[in-house]
Amino acid sequence: MNPLTQTNRYFSALFEDTEVSDAFGTKRTLGHFLAFEIALTEGLAKSGAVDGAVAGAAIEKMKSFAPDIAAIEAKCPTDGLAVPEFVRQLKTYLGSELTPAVHIGGTSQDLIDTATVLTLKEINGVFTTRLDCAIDGIARLISEHGDNTIMGRTRMQAALPITVKHRLESWIAPLRQHQDRLAAMRPKLEVLQFGGATGDRSANGDKAALIGAVMAEQLGLTDPGRSWHNDRSRLVDYAGWLSMVSGSLGKIGQDICLMAQQGVDEIAQSGGGSSSAMAHKQNPVTAEMLVSLAQYNAGQVSLMHNALMHEQERSGVAWTLEWMVLPAMACTTGKALQLADRQLSAITRIGS
Amino acid sequence: MNPLTQTNRYFSALFEDTEVSDAFGTKRTLGHFLAFEIALTEGLAKSGAVDGAVAGAAIEKMKSFAPDIAAIEAKCPTDGLAVPEFVRQLKTYLGSELTPAVHIGGTSQDLIDTATVLTLKEINGVFTTRLDCAIDGIARLISEHGDNTIMGRTRMQAALPITVKHRLESWIAPLRQHQDRLAAMRPKLEVLQFGGATGDRSANGDKAALIGAVMAEQLGLTDPGRSWHNDRSRLVDYAGWLSMVSGSLGKIGQDICLMAQQGVDEIAQSGGGSSSAMAHKQNPVTAEMLVSLAQYNAGQVSLMHNALMHEQERSGVAWTLEWMVLPAMACTTGKALQLADRQLSAITRIGS
Amino acid sequence: MNPLTQTNRYFSALFEDTEVSDAFGTKRTLGHFLAFEIALTEGLAKSGAVDGAVAGAAIEKMKSFAPDIAAIEAKCPTDGLAVPEFVRQLKTYLGSELTPAVHIGGTSQDLIDTATVLTLKEINGVFTTRLDCAIDGIARLISEHGDNTIMGRTRMQAALPITVKHRLESWIAPLRQHQDRLAAMRPKLEVLQFGGATGDRSANGDKAALIGAVMAEQLGLTDPGRSWHNDRSRLVDYAGWLSMVSGSLGKIGQDICLMAQQGVDEIAQSGGGSSSAMAHKQNPVTAEMLVSLAQYNAGQVSLMHNALMHEQERSGVAWTLEWMVLPAMACTTGKALQLADRQLSAITRIGS
Amino acid sequence: MNPLTQTNRYFSALFEDTEVSDAFGTKRTLGHFLAFEIALTEGLAKSGAVDGAVAGAAIEKMKSFAPDIAAIEAKCPTDGLAVPEFVRQLKTYLGSELTPAVHIGGTSQDLIDTATVLTLKEINGVFTTRLDCAIDGIARLISEHGDNTIMGRTRMQAALPITVKHRLESWIAPLRQHQDRLAAMRPKLEVLQFGGATGDRSANGDKAALIGAVMAEQLGLTDPGRSWHNDRSRLVDYAGWLSMVSGSLGKIGQDICLMAQQGVDEIAQSGGGSSSAMAHKQNPVTAEMLVSLAQYNAGQVSLMHNALMHEQERSGVAWTLEWMVLPAMACTTGKALQLADRQLSAITRIGS
Repeated sequence: MNPLTQTNRYFSALFEDTEVSDAFGTKRTLGHFLAFEIALTEGLAKSGAVDGAVAGAAIEKMKSFAPDIAAIEAKCPTDGLAVPEFVRQLKTYLGSELTPAVHIGGTSQDLIDTATVLTLKEINGVFTTRLDCAIDGIARLISEHGDNTIMGRTRMQAALPITVKHRLESWIAPLRQHQDRLAAMRPKLEVLQFGGATGDRSANGDKAALIGAVMAEQLGLTDPGRSWHNDRSRLVDYAGWLSMVSGSLGKIGQDICLMAQQGVDEIAQSGGGSSSAMAHKQNPVTAEMLVSLAQYNAGQVSLMHNALMHEQERSGVAWTLEWMVLPAMACTTGKALQLADRQLSAITRIGS
Repeated sequence: MNPLTQTNRYFSALFEDTEVSDAFGTKRTLGHFLAFEIALTEGLAKSGAVDGAVAGAAIEKMKSFAPDIAAIEAKCPTDGLAVPEFVRQLKTYLGSELTPAVHIGGTSQDLIDTATVLTLKEINGVFTTRLDCAIDGIARLISEHGDNTIMGRTRMQAALPITVKHRLESWIAPLRQHQDRLAAMRPKLEVLQFGGATGDRSANGDKAALIGAVMAEQLGLTDPGRSWHNDRSRLVDYAGWLSMVSGSLGKIGQDICLMAQQGVDEIAQSGGGSSSAMAHKQNPVTAEMLVSLAQYNAGQVSLMHNALMHEQERSGVAWTLEWMVLPAMACTTGKALQLADRQLSAITRIGS
Repeated sequence: MNPLTQTNRYFSALFEDTEVSDAFGTKRTLGHFLAFEIALTEGLAKSGAVDGAVAGAAIEKMKSFAPDIAAIEAKCPTDGLAVPEFVRQLKTYLGSELTPAVHIGGTSQDLIDTATVLTLKEINGVFTTRLDCAIDGIARLISEHGDNTIMGRTRMQAALPITVKHRLESWIAPLRQHQDRLAAMRPKLEVLQFGGATGDRSANGDKAALIGAVMAEQLGLTDPGRSWHNDRSRLVDYAGWLSMVSGSLGKIGQDICLMAQQGVDEIAQSGGGSSSAMAHKQNPVTAEMLVSLAQYNAGQVSLMHNALMHEQERSGVAWTLEWMVLPAMACTTGKALQLADRQLSAITRIGS
Repeated sequence: MNPLTQTNRYFSALFEDTEVSDAFGTKRTLGHFLAFEIALTEGLAKSGAVDGAVAGAAIEKMKSFAPDIAAIEAKCPTDGLAVPEFVRQLKTYLGSELTPAVHIGGTSQDLIDTATVLTLKEINGVFTTRLDCAIDGIARLISEHGDNTIMGRTRMQAALPITVKHRLESWIAPLRQHQDRLAAMRPKLEVLQFGGATGDRSANGDKAALIGAVMAEQLGLTDPGRSWHNDRSRLVDYAGWLSMVSGSLGKIGQDICLMAQQGVDEIAQSGGGSSSAMAHKQNPVTAEMLVSLAQYNAGQVSLMHNALMHEQERSGVAWTLEWMVLPAMACTTGKALQLADRQLSAITRIGS
């Protein structure tokens, strides 16, 4: 929803994290849609719900399906999402002989939610690597400057001198916890969405359980055994994690801003921002941005909690709100992790 | 910050309002930067702060300045904003004879905040027109269906029958108020930002007042007589207005979703969204999106209020947060107004 | 909803503003309910809707009505609000001869919303006085220390020296605007709510307009001519004002915290908070609390915007949410204004 | 911060959950403070940091210490918290011979954060019981009405008929997950806070580890081995859990409101709210309140995430904000669980 990052290239340069945003992009998302349909047909075949030969031929042909993205885009404002036109194109492409083996017992939400989960699985790998990188960056600073002394400050007042090691260990501690939280969360988060029109898997009767199991295995996900279409708590819990990560990095950025003040001078760093009016200034732009990104995500997390009120069997309102918020939060956390790495590498001295 | 609208074309199609987002785009923003510099040089000349002939030549040459956007983008992550590189390019382009008449007493925040205000001035015209259009749309429904009867519902329970006119007048009333609020707000909002390095206009001494007056007139803005660089209440009040507009439209969307339920059947409309699983369904996608957009803006407005805590003479943190939030809110309100028009036009019957 | 202020007396001492919270208290609220019913009966009589003699006798007797608060409290969890039992008690007290002149065309929402507006009218007087007091406090500091020099700081970096006057004038400017905003808002905010069961005033037919006019005059309010029962934008706009006031005071608190840091030492003040571990410390508790209160209100304002989606003719959900949020915001703003006065008076030096 | 629940008794009746709010009350909190000091003295003695006999005598005498709550309250506005005066009173009560064995290496934050954790430990037991109760209530409805048919609704449109069992199982699923989440979270949440003035435990040198271990055991908590004074992620994660619980109950409330609409009539229940204007109405007050409470907590959770930016070794700002928000969230979740029980018990029929 942010036109700056959309139409304003120099603001894009500030906020963009293409590795994460590409994972939410059109191509990858449509790729996940197709993977879902292939896995579904596989499951339908293995469970005997459809003819195996037809299913096999359909799967072969689906592998080379190239959707007309512009046509999908054109139908979105009316349908409210991309799936109906995607499925229509896919069926047209497959033809009347193969369509009987496709999309049986699937629905729009199955495709979109499963695609979201597959995207999150990808970026969770990225976040894990970047968190390690941030922890290593702080550990390096501890090894280089940890024995220096710095004034411990409580309520923004000088308390008693502490070691730099003590302050920096308080930067690492939450990041380690976030690593553990993500590791514990992933098996519950990276789960198949498969429920059909009303989420009860009734279209496939007693074959549904096997179909779900086959699909989950094919897609590298877990099958929770039932649809979670109107229970969004997994995504809400994950959004809280995204905001906790950017928040803990925001605390680091805020500490750096405070240490960098003239008169305090507890930190030295390279490559600050320049000023159009004052050549002498070195603005702690990266540290400031860590705080801004943390505040941004803190604000968004409330909207994800609002989306818990997902009425009846499917809420167009709550679901659409998630689409506006969750990817933006993921990109913000990704950007914060990138900036943390840059910031930590730029520090040349802490304390004395 | 939303990668969907950024890299995912079919979601763009759902949320995009190009008329509003273009107003925040690179070209228009850099155009506002240049307009600011031209107005400043004009003011410097008229006040006698710089040589009139040099200023005149500089203004002439500035009119044909074409910034290297890629170079500006490349410097943004370091500088945290586009202005330093923009000014550097402008001075290089003007050369050493003309630069003495340029950017004297100006600073990055003057350019960015004034550019934002010029953008808001543009879109306020758009919003005024669209609000009129929404009010007309409801008025038309009143003229066509106003005498029909509908069950008045309080706490989601049947209360007593009311006229359709009564319910629809309660849709119009807040929109009329929003029109009045915007009209009253615009003269206070559409004001020049001009303060220099620390906001005190000291670089131009006693000539500053005249310079500000000249600049404001040239730019079609008001000169508040002082810098408002660290008082963001004008923008925060405006953000509240943006959210009140989308919120009042969200109430309309929610009412329509409730009227459209099977069993209630108080409304008929054309062109609903289709389902990938159920051919018979007509989803009230537009009405639902009005609610989602309202919830989105309601969440963002808190972040703008956070940005009121703009420390000292300039807060990189609070300012950057505004860049992430305000344009997104404006586009959301713009989109809600577009969808409201589409929704109101689609209604073929209310009540009976 | 905050048990600290409710059951934890020493936290109450931190956050309480009894002058404002009492205005939302049981006695005053029930007094407003009764004032509404008296004004309604007056209007019914003047419009000829009820017998003048009966109305007169009813008004006389109502003046001495003392509701059974415990009984009202006991019915609240079932009814969801206090009015049904209040009206039942009132009618029992008046007896069958006088009740025909009472509550005709009134409903719960009329009583509660009008009571809220009467409460806001009271506290707006308090806020106006306190804002004047805060402005005077800053003006006094300017007269005493305004010519001192202080380092202007942008992006938390030393920029160029400024006068203390310059920084302090940027504290006053938004407060003056908030005074103007409140003055402009009050006539639109302090309006009668009178609509009856579904808000259409139909129960009193063509006499409704006169009845509303009489009621408004009696209650010292304006009659908007129609019910605003499901248009909450007046209250939402007001909530934004409450948060802008606490936010502008939060900026002052944050500046003071930053100036008070050892190494910066740009301010001296008396009466800081003591530490259980470090006798030498003087914590800037009041300045910190100004920031906390600002952040609190910034978070709450989103909830008021959510309440704009007030479905159909009355939303129990959105209305109840307002009851949880608006009074808390008003007390927070009131407390912030009290603390600002204390903080400003405690300053003995700024700059040098 | 909510004066309604504070001074307005009939609103208290709506929102109060005394079992939870009492756990945050003055007596219990001061009891936790004292338990902390006793445990600390025990640890100091066991580690040999203080004389065992003096410590023993001090512990004996502390057990009968009755703080002067009014005096603590009176000092709070200046100190910003209750601990300094509490410790002063305690030391005066113990006298100069015993004080050498008291508060050595402890600080205000150790007492307050540990007291908070002890409070959360208490209420987590309450929440676990109430969640079981809610799950049992839904299970009972499934056993009684689960085989009934109801129209499955997606995007608020009739989709296909489903069993009541299917919808109600989607109410249970998230509650079961919340039970698991809390069980997994408690060992990480219910941890001792012990760090001293700057959080580095330096005042007790190499004895600190043993002291912490003794304290944790005495208090029934875990010792994380280091202070978490400026890492608030445990509390933020917990706040997210509180809001997920109220959010999942809000979804149930919203479904019930929608099922109870005239024309839909998918549910029957006893004991609805009465109206002052329409005797025939039965308002679904309890179901509506579940939605309001969910929205309230969803809004608050952002503020807890803001509090992650806990600058340096102790942030008075972020910490004070937690005091305003976390207890309110806990009471809201507690109330939602109470109301859910009442609501589920009131249902006499679902579907047909």
